[in-house]
Amino acid sequence: MKRTELTEKILDAKRDGELSWKSIAETIGGYSQLYIMTALLGQMRLPPPQARKAAELFGLSAAEEKMLGEVPYRAEQSLVPPTDPTLYRFHEAMMVFGPTMKEYIHEEFGDGIMSAIDFDLSMEREPNEAGDRVRIVMSGKFLPYRYHQPEEGAPALGYKEK
Amino acid sequence: MKRTELTEKILDAKRDGELSWKSIAETIGGYSQLYIMTALLGQMRLPPPQARKAAELFGLSAAEEKMLGEVPYRAEQSLVPPTDPTLYRFHEAMMVFGPTMKEYIHEEFGDGIMSAIDFDLSMEREPNEAGDRVRIVMSGKFLPYRYHQPEEGAPALGYKEK
Amino acid sequence: MKRTELTEKILDAKRDGELSWKSIAETIGGYSQLYIMTALLGQMRLPPPQARKAAELFGLSAAEEKMLGEVPYRAEQSLVPPTDPTLYRFHEAMMVFGPTMKEYIHEEFGDGIMSAIDFDLSMEREPNEAGDRVRIVMSGKFLPYRYHQPEEGAPALGYKEK
Amino acid sequence: MKRTELTEKILDAKRDGELSWKSIAETIGGYSQLYIMTALLGQMRLPPPQARKAAELFGLSAAEEKMLGEVPYRAEQSLVPPTDPTLYRFHEAMMVFGPTMKEYIHEEFGDGIMSAIDFDLSMEREPNEAGDRVRIVMSGKFLPYRYHQPEEGAPALGYKEK
Amino acid sequence: MKRTELTEKILDAKRDGELSWKSIAETIGGYSQLYIMTALLGQMRLPPPQARKAAELFGLSAAEEKMLGEVPYRAEQSLVPPTDPTLYRFHEAMMVFGPTMKEYIHEEFGDGIMSAIDFDLSMEREPNEAGDRVRIVMSGKFLPYRYHQPEEGAPALGYKEK
Amino acid sequence: MKRTELTEKILDAKRDGELSWKSIAETIGGYSQLYIMTALLGQMRLPPPQARKAAELFGLSAAEEKMLGEVPYRAEQSLVPPTDPTLYRFHEAMMVFGPTMKEYIHEEFGDGIMSAIDFDLSMEREPNEAGDRVRIVMSGKFLPYRYHQPEEGAPALGYKEK
Amino acid sequence: MKRTELTEKILDAKRDGELSWKSIAETIGGYSQLYIMTALLGQMRLPPPQARKAAELFGLSAAEEKMLGEVPYRAEQSLVPPTDPTLYRFHEAMMVFGPTMKEYIHEEFGDGIMSAIDFDLSMEREPNEAGDRVRIVMSGKFLPYRYHQPEEGAPALGYKEK
Amino acid sequence: MKRTELTEKILDAKRDGELSWKSIAETIGGYSQLYIMTALLGQMRLPPPQARKAAELFGLSAAEEKMLGEVPYRAEQSLVPPTDPTLYRFHEAMMVFGPTMKEYIHEEFGDGIMSAIDFDLSMEREPNEAGDRVRIVMSGKFLPYRYHQPEEGAPALGYKEK
Amino acid sequence: MKRTELTEKILDAKRDGELSWKSIAETIGGYSQLYIMTALLGQMRLPPPQARKAAELFGLSAAEEKMLGEVPYRAEQSLVPPTDPTLYRFHEAMMVFGPTMKEYIHEEFGDGIMSAIDFDLSMEREPNEAGDRVRIVMSGKFLPYRYHQPEEGAPALGYKEK
Amino acid sequence: MKRTELTEKILDAKRDGELSWKSIAETIGGYSQLYIMTALLGQMRLPPPQARKAAELFGLSAAEEKMLGEVPYRAEQSLVPPTDPTLYRFHEAMMVFGPTMKEYIHEEFGDGIMSAIDFDLSMEREPNEAGDRVRIVMSGKFLPYRYHQPEEGAPALGYKEK
Repeated sequence: MKRTELTEKILDAKRDGELSWKSIAETIGGYSQLYIMTALLGQMRLPPPQARKAAELFGLSAAEEKMLGEVPYRAEQSLVPPTDPTLYRFHEAMMVFGPTMKEYIHEEFGDGIMSAIDFDLSMEREPNEAGDRVRIVMSGKFLPYRYHQPEEGAPALGYKEK
Repeated sequence: MKRTELTEKILDAKRDGELSWKSIAETIGGYSQLYIMTALLGQMRLPPPQARKAAELFGLSAAEEKMLGEVPYRAEQSLVPPTDPTLYRFHEAMMVFGPTMKEYIHEEFGDGIMSAIDFDLSMEREPNEAGDRVRIVMSGKFLPYRYHQPEEGAPALGYKEK
Repeated sequence: MKRTELTEKILDAKRDGELSWKSIAETIGGYSQLYIMTALLGQMRLPPPQARKAAELFGLSAAEEKMLGEVPYRAEQSLVPPTDPTLYRFHEAMMVFGPTMKEYIHEEFGDGIMSAIDFDLSMEREPNEAGDRVRIVMSGKFLPYRYHQPEEGAPALGYKEK
Repeated sequence: MKRTELTEKILDAKRDGELSWKSIAETIGGYSQLYIMTALLGQMRLPPPQARKAAELFGLSAAEEKMLGEVPYRAEQSLVPPTDPTLYRFHEAMMVFGPTMKEYIHEEFGDGIMSAIDFDLSMEREPNEAGDRVRIVMSGKFLPYRYHQPEEGAPALGYKEK
Repeated sequence: MKRTELTEKILDAKRDGELSWKSIAETIGGYSQLYIMTALLGQMRLPPPQARKAAELFGLSAAEEKMLGEVPYRAEQSLVPPTDPTLYRFHEAMMVFGPTMKEYIHEEFGDGIMSAIDFDLSMEREPNEAGDRVRIVMSGKFLPYRYHQPEEGAPALGYKEK
Repeated sequence: MKRTELTEKILDAKRDGELSWKSIAETIGGYSQLYIMTALLGQMRLPPPQARKAAELFGLSAAEEKMLGEVPYRAEQSLVPPTDPTLYRFHEAMMVFGPTMKEYIHEEFGDGIMSAIDFDLSMEREPNEAGDRVRIVMSGKFLPYRYHQPEEGAPALGYKEK
Repeated sequence: MKRTELTEKILDAKRDGELSWKSIAETIGGYSQLYIMTALLGQMRLPPPQARKAAELFGLSAAEEKMLGEVPYRAEQSLVPPTDPTLYRFHEAMMVFGPTMKEYIHEEFGDGIMSAIDFDLSMEREPNEAGDRVRIVMSGKFLPYRYHQPEEGAPALGYKEK
Repeated sequence: MKRTELTEKILDAKRDGELSWKSIAETIGGYSQLYIMTALLGQMRLPPPQARKAAELFGLSAAEEKMLGEVPYRAEQSLVPPTDPTLYRFHEAMMVFGPTMKEYIHEEFGDGIMSAIDFDLSMEREPNEAGDRVRIVMSGKFLPYRYHQPEEGAPALGYKEK
Repeated sequence: MKRTELTEKILDAKRDGELSWKSIAETIGGYSQLYIMTALLGQMRLPPPQARKAAELFGLSAAEEKMLGEVPYRAEQSLVPPTDPTLYRFHEAMMVFGPTMKEYIHEEFGDGIMSAIDFDLSMEREPNEAGDRVRIVMSGKFLPYRYHQPEEGAPALGYKEK
Repeated sequence: MKRTELTEKILDAKRDGELSWKSIAETIGGYSQLYIMTALLGQMRLPPPQARKAAELFGLSAAEEKMLGEVPYRAEQSLVPPTDPTLYRFHEAMMVFGPTMKEYIHEEFGDGIMSAIDFDLSMEREPNEAGDRVRIVMSGKFLPYRYHQPEEGAPALGYKEK
């Protein structure tokens, strides 16, 4: 059994049940809607109580329920760059503003990265007279490059205290 | 003259002058720091008064000053996927959460995209006891697919009023 | 169930019924022929009344009918560049005239893009003594780059009033 | 000497002279503005009288003037897919609507292509209350597949008389 | 049903029937052997009378017979560059002699292309003492670039009368 | 010194001298025009007497003259697939008719290839009322697969006597 | 039926029968072991008597037996570069020593190639105290470039008599 | 000035001075030899005191010294996969053992990654009778996926206490 | 039967049996846990006694048991670069530190590689107050380039005795 | 200074001096002709006495002489697959016969590879009435997979004693 087949089955059940992601997340509970969506789309694992509820909701077998709790091979179906226009706009923004974000991080924090693992994502509808907007907030821990500790007395690398 | 050569010259002047992006943005003024950085990195154009100040600050020729005001060919130097770890984390987050963001947008707004053109980006340092975080806010106008207006009486496509 | 399988089923039914796209569009109604074709080929969604008629015409199941109303992952089957000669000519024209179109847009409108979302497409046969021609009209809203509003008094970016 | 170097020199002269494409086309004359732009951008050749005027306008050498009249290696600098947002939107529209355009051509004309060689392009600003639009008209001769003439009495391939 | 599956079925029937392409072409008739081969291999469409005979010969269903008459998505299975040595040699010859053929066409005809649509192909065995040779003749109509008609009095582009 | 730089120099001299390929080939002599063109474009070597004449004609140095006589690294500048429309049509024809040509060769000759090394190419203008045509004749020796000679009495592989 | 499926079936039968390639080659006979292996792996055709014996050995159907005798589309499953370490080492050796082999061939023979068609391959175990070695011998006919015969009196190209 | 040019200059000075990496690291001091090598090869930044010493050692300009202290765009010159045999073996080991390492991490630690940022690398020569070995130790902090904190009472994701 | 299908079956059985890799390795025995994992994931072969135990544990058929003992085509499913974040970090570390490791090996050992074949891998959890770490040790035999033995008296290449 | 520039300089000197590889190898001495060619083409290092002679022969600077003795980044200029016909034939043979060679090695030796490092290459002209042949002999040490030594009593992996 492949995770992509499980994802397809879940989407079939969602379609048949005329379920919204919002109602699915409320039924499963315990985590944010975005987290639950990401897990059901095959990019995160679902803890046992949530997997249990998902199995009931979508009519999954015991093996499928267990698979929902496994760490997936992430993003294996991704087209790079994405062809879908909705996905492409994220890719484009990252290409156009990527160097700016890199320079900003290094000036503000020092040498390192914004973690994509210790990372939170939230989305909301931002009302606006000129047309509502999609608001996406990403918050990732700054991780300084700590490769090879310096000898005594030498400066610590990466992190720059404000 | 190529825009990449101009960018390299600006970075050379920034290094020689020991300038920070923050101080550069304050000197040039009129727009946010991130906008000015993006323009100086060759991904946006700089309006004439700002191009003027940039020319003074970096010692640019008249032709270089004018080029700063031109619309660039964007992202032509981008490696896809990026090899730099700081850039790659943005790419990875878009791959892992992309399908979630797409599904969220369609359930919340209908068929369409978050614009990467009518789009704002802000970044800030988010203090946190467990280690400070990078906070990135993206806000893009939702653009509904409006392709081919329906006949009278048929539903409008794309946009879903809340 | 995958959208590509649904598209294949629709094309099978079209073949079996000896249907033309023109007659299909008339039967389904409510939108232009090109819109309906695009939806049935898996690149747009079909509103419920139209999905209903499509289901009757092609003998689709309830789940397939619902899927027709979903926003698809667009262009995932596209070969880039396309190998099919009919498709390749569009690609070639965009490569050869792309820089010209970009320069024209920036000189005429300012910094921004022609939207591919708020976008209309029409095609028609153009009679011509030397051989009839294919006439394609694309009309997309100009979207100015509005990234990061300027401070008060600074010029608005992107859009250039005529 | 490479054609890309000549294009760069022309753009440098255009910048120094603060010339618009419109004024350049008027000065050079004889062909549409879009044609002259395409030639100066290195994708078409310029006939001798026009190359003469271009040489005067941009201060080109005799060799450069001659090179303007040569058939170029077209699109060799194209990134596929393009990274620039303005160019990408054309690419995206061709991906999303490509199958539709192919099906339309075959139903309307028979087996064949829209020529990208016997091809006209025009662009204009389309005033619109909701925001002006970019209007692009492409007109290419339909070319029927004529590969291998049939034996006597067999139907002609490709072209479908209306 | 996919065209590649139909092609596979035809090749299975050819194998089972121990048929040669020559005998198949004679049975189907009306067009050259190479045309019929190309259609049965999924790269051209077969007119109704020929599709009828092919269906009888290979035991095809009514739907498969109709599909033979449809315009295919051409070359979608092509590996670029081809790995098969027989196919690769054509690719190699086009790479090595391509620039020569381009220069020849432009010097002899002017700016334009050899059509791959209004195009004939023939092959034959060329007896030779040092070992027989494969002789391939391609004849394509020269198509001059006619993009944007010149103003009155300006020279016509592309075509160069001998 | 790189062969591509030498080719560029030759094209510069051809432009300055307003030379045609036809006149160049007549001056250099000894081989067909297409052969000489291919060598000057960096894809074949030119024997010493011809290299001598080319050096005189184009004003080459002794080292450049010698380089003309060296076996080049062929096709290293080729874009695959080619972006230039004139080159692309050859590529397209090979993709669309490739499988047909492969099947034809195997049925007519047995297992093997048409050599691209023991290979002749000729081109000519084919007058035609509906528009002149480009006629290309390729003749390559059939090379049978001879890998590993059979044991005595077993059939020879590859070649099929007529 | 696809050739890859047939290859998979043969490997299944080899596994079930606990057969070695050596014993298979002895049973089939008539050609070297490497040739028979290559044919059974789908890269060469097997003459009728050998195909007959293979069909008996592996329990193949009549259609499968015939397919074994067909010329395959070679190397279509190849990953380039190969990921398998055993295959990669051949690829690596060709990359590292390729230029050397090319220069050697041209200095020793003139302009041309080592044929991969009129080509023999043998492998054997080479005992060695420091660890046995794999010995591979490739012998391919030198094919001189003969493109376009010279005019009378001009030197023949490619081949250099020793 | 580009970082790759600086790296090339440093390697030129290392060659001229007949310096070993070991002696360079001792001269510069403060960090491990591998860290200093990585920085001088353009993949890490060098703190000011070390950059100062490097500038003296290699004869760098003030601007070059400053550039050594900047965060680089990492790995932009990397070939993926690498062609160099020494580099390729690391790539191969990661491909062959990658899935094993992923499974091990998830079973031992839970959902997350081994950081490549909070990461130490050491190498040493491991004496061995059968031939000395290269010993590489990588130690990276396990980072649990913490995306979207759970509601109260739900289990924390990612990290699995032993 | 394909090895990837066998791997999938094993993972299904592992899930159904709620088995850990640790317990699987203990049951199968004879080799390290990492070796057994790698074999079950399709990248190594399992010797007969171990294959026997694996077959019992996972309920494999006789053919599947035999396949476990075959040398696989390694890494054929690998995405390069990997999209999965856990796998990507290994790839990234190899890109960033690759040149350093290459230089270190050449300075310490001479010209050659670290073998990925005569190679040991071990992993363990490294307790750490700031968060436990993943510790990976790779030990590969240094293999000196020995290509073409020198003439008598010339130095041996590659290996540098300490 | 880059190694590719040094290689170009050596080829320039070889051309100017009308030197053959054979005479170059005799002058430099100490190693086989193929080894010396490979080193001069930038794929191997040249020991000091040989580098000394090469510097004299080609007029190299002291720095260039030292660079000849450095371990190069191998194959970084390789096109994969190669476009040059002489190089391509090696690539093709490896693709077509690769699986055969892999199977042969595993049946004869067990699990492992033919080393491309402990590897010898020789080439010679093989006289043949039907046309002389290129004979290439590759001899590489078989390296058994030794990953993770088995527990006591378990069979050693990889190597299969004859």
